[in-house]
Amino acid sequence: MDGLHILANLYRCAGEPRYLTDRAALRGLCLAAIERAGLTALGDLFHQFDGGGATGCIVLAESHVAIHTWPEFATVTLDAFVCNYSRDNTARAHGLVDELVAIFRPEDAVRHEVRRDLTAADAATRVAPLRRAAG
Amino acid sequence: MDGLHILANLYRCAGEPRYLTDRAALRGLCLAAIERAGLTALGDLFHQFDGGGATGCIVLAESHVAIHTWPEFATVTLDAFVCNYSRDNTARAHGLVDELVAIFRPEDAVRHEVRRDLTAADAATRVAPLRRAAG
Repeated sequence: MDGLHILANLYRCAGEPRYLTDRAALRGLCLAAIERAGLTALGDLFHQFDGGGATGCIVLAESHVAIHTWPEFATVTLDAFVCNYSRDNTARAHGLVDELVAIFRPEDAVRHEVRRDLTAADAATRVAPLRRAAG
Repeated sequence: MDGLHILANLYRCAGEPRYLTDRAALRGLCLAAIERAGLTALGDLFHQFDGGGATGCIVLAESHVAIHTWPEFATVTLDAFVCNYSRDNTARAHGLVDELVAIFRPEDAVRHEVRRDLTAADAATRVAPLRRAAG
């Protein structure tokens, strides 16, 4: 029983600025992308910061998504953690992150992928090599 | 401008079972630990699964905490992501995770620490060596 946690840092995002500054726009974007990816949102919480950024957490049936925006740096951090409890959600997690990266249009991006085993420690120590790609 | 994301997988947790099965107990535990660690919770969302597990996401002024429980495996996954926007929150994140690990009492645990730079891609590629420790 394993899970996959994707951590993406998106730099110099050139997509629509409202997705970095407007909690409601960011929420709508994320929930739509989650649905299109075939994942199931069970609840969400989006917070607007005074400085213009926003933070969102979405509880999924498959685990969670978390997103933070720093419009002053045009930076977004994105987490998608899916467990494979009842099916393999790996492709869905990749699809979700790929779609959001395409919308945020970062000039540079870094992803980490961490396998998180749920039933034994050994397998959880695997960390995939860093994959670096222009946005 | 960097941040620290700690991902911990806790196996064979021998602490109080209610923290793995009761959304309200888990929420109270997390919010109290966050306050004791000196971090600031701005909102939270906890979901109870039919199977007995729970998921919680807490939006922090410093970024977020996410926790999932699988009581059927006595497993907990814990994420603490803190940015160092206005101060260095590294010690606070370590303190929070250490305290929750002590309460969940896992027989085995795996932690990953990922530095997440907010302003440049280069520094974000650093991944600390895995630290494995009995709970």
